[in-house]
Amino acid sequence: MPFTATDHAMMARALRLAERGLYTTRPNPMVGCVMAQGEQIVGEGWHQRAGEPHAEVFALQAAGDRARGATAYVSLEPCAHTGRTAPCADALIAAGVARVVAAMRDPFPQVDGAGFDKLRAAGIAVESGLMEAQARALNRGFISRVERGRPWLRVKLATSLDGRSALANGESKWISGEASRLDVQHWRARAGAIVTGAGTVLADDPSLTVRLEDDTPFVPPLRVVLDPGLATVARGRVREGDAPTLYIHAPDAKPPRGINAQLASVPVREGRFDLQAVLRLLAERDVNEIQLEAGATLAGAFVSAGLVDEVLLYVAPVLLGERARPMFDGLAIDTMAQKLKMTIVESRYIGQDVRLLLRPESAG
Amino acid sequence: MPFTATDHAMMARALRLAERGLYTTRPNPMVGCVMAQGEQIVGEGWHQRAGEPHAEVFALQAAGDRARGATAYVSLEPCAHTGRTAPCADALIAAGVARVVAAMRDPFPQVDGAGFDKLRAAGIAVESGLMEAQARALNRGFISRVERGRPWLRVKLATSLDGRSALANGESKWISGEASRLDVQHWRARAGAIVTGAGTVLADDPSLTVRLEDDTPFVPPLRVVLDPGLATVARGRVREGDAPTLYIHAPDAKPPRGINAQLASVPVREGRFDLQAVLRLLAERDVNEIQLEAGATLAGAFVSAGLVDEVLLYVAPVLLGERARPMFDGLAIDTMAQKLKMTIVESRYIGQDVRLLLRPESAG
Repeated sequence: MPFTATDHAMMARALRLAERGLYTTRPNPMVGCVMAQGEQIVGEGWHQRAGEPHAEVFALQAAGDRARGATAYVSLEPCAHTGRTAPCADALIAAGVARVVAAMRDPFPQVDGAGFDKLRAAGIAVESGLMEAQARALNRGFISRVERGRPWLRVKLATSLDGRSALANGESKWISGEASRLDVQHWRARAGAIVTGAGTVLADDPSLTVRLEDDTPFVPPLRVVLDPGLATVARGRVREGDAPTLYIHAPDAKPPRGINAQLASVPVREGRFDLQAVLRLLAERDVNEIQLEAGATLAGAFVSAGLVDEVLLYVAPVLLGERARPMFDGLAIDTMAQKLKMTIVESRYIGQDVRLLLRPESAG
Repeated sequence: MPFTATDHAMMARALRLAERGLYTTRPNPMVGCVMAQGEQIVGEGWHQRAGEPHAEVFALQAAGDRARGATAYVSLEPCAHTGRTAPCADALIAAGVARVVAAMRDPFPQVDGAGFDKLRAAGIAVESGLMEAQARALNRGFISRVERGRPWLRVKLATSLDGRSALANGESKWISGEASRLDVQHWRARAGAIVTGAGTVLADDPSLTVRLEDDTPFVPPLRVVLDPGLATVARGRVREGDAPTLYIHAPDAKPPRGINAQLASVPVREGRFDLQAVLRLLAERDVNEIQLEAGATLAGAFVSAGLVDEVLLYVAPVLLGERARPMFDGLAIDTMAQKLKMTIVESRYIGQDVRLLLRPESAG
């Protein structure tokens, strides 16, 4: 049955509501819900934080008695299991909702169609797939973690026009402008983890915290340092502040005693981390989306391994010359056929710079 | 006396008319002219080709008797000298024009205020400076040649995201997409000369001709090869077709006999051309605007010499890796303070690529 214009408008609203949870719902997906009687909205809700009520619950509360006979538009299949909150499917049934329209099935193993089944068994008309592409894009990280067993990996880079990410001496600060450095904060805020390497910790001593200009609430992302020998664990701004810090090290590293940080070991081959294992470990720790903010070596290793889902590239209108460091180290390209192709998803000015969002042609 | 809204509208129209000569007026400037009686346009004209009538003549012809008492809006001061055509100032006086509004004084030594003087002496009200910035931008190349004694120099480059202009083996074809390669043709068509180096002739054998998709008329730009030892003079596509070709060589090079191309010698110091002298020579040959389409060595030499006025950069969403050739060779940059800063004048999608137009912060 084709969806009506009203259905589309309601789902678009539900997706916009869902987006409000961009910085706070992690590790849960963002979900929005609109209750409607025909063309009239009688209740709205969105999921705000893991552990707190789901979008449907807020919308049902707002609708009150007017939920009876209503259509519930949800950007994701209602849950059927008891997690930290009761199943939404049960709440929709109890409220007497007549029809449920979902943008997509929830791939999470404990839902995965069970929500729809429960609703149908109670005599509710259920339809799914309205604006599914938008819904999948919204929860790209969550879907990646559940379906691929690894987080969505975004590489953030600031480069010169001539593709250099640092000078020969390692200096990389102030390539991009202030507007770009502020813009990066919003992309950090939506990530479950900000990952860097020991080299960057030594060279730049970044704090890897989120610094928004206003008081928008956000859940501080996990800061992750890939440090095979735990050489940087004793110090650095990456250990300061409220956000948690995780050091990923080689199995044979000797963790110092009494340090105030999380530690996890990942196999190393020929001195290099098994990057697939790194991603698996972070997925197991409920990270949906990674923002990699590292030097050319680590960034290049992720690219070479084919594990990069998108590149967030701030191009500053400066030249640094051919002695400066490349954008990615270790890309073995000798013929045009081997060139690594991407697609420009978005291009926009950020202050004096241009920001490109790119995805490898093979990626989803 | 402030200009009125009608004055602005008429001059904007004159500038748009002038632009129609972009591919054909060289080495003359582009000029547009609007004759108006109050708010009514009674005649229009634009300069089409050097040697043919100027904009004012076409506009006067169109206006006929209605030129008497009219205001003439011209994007450049009317000429006062007899070149290949009679002075426009005389024609305006003879037609009984009451007022002349110009966007800018013509810096060409044989005009340079003499047109205005002649008009004023005949009792015509003369005003200049309306939309002068736009008028100067329009004839950037002509003004550069007349005022600075060198052409406006645009460096055209196609690079990968990681700032590479060719593979290590020199291969540079098909970095950018087809849409970008078509777009380049329009920038070639407006240039007085397309300049390359012997290395590019050997590696890519470019024809450096203009290939537009439709039958828009254009004057074929001079093709210029910087070839100290005249190593490439015997062959190559750069010698084929209708466009003239000029080889610039070192004073001690031995030109082969009977070749069908122009030759000129320029001083060489430590094996490198005096690039200022190269530009001076091309200005003396009436080149307003140069498009440099060369490899990293020559492009880098022009950048290092501070002679680049703008960079037309096609960024293709591909990675070529750090073994590939840099965008500019020979930029000696060791500290962030030495980085070469530019301004992004324009950014737009061209097919799958992004085209950036950049100007060094010091340039005009």
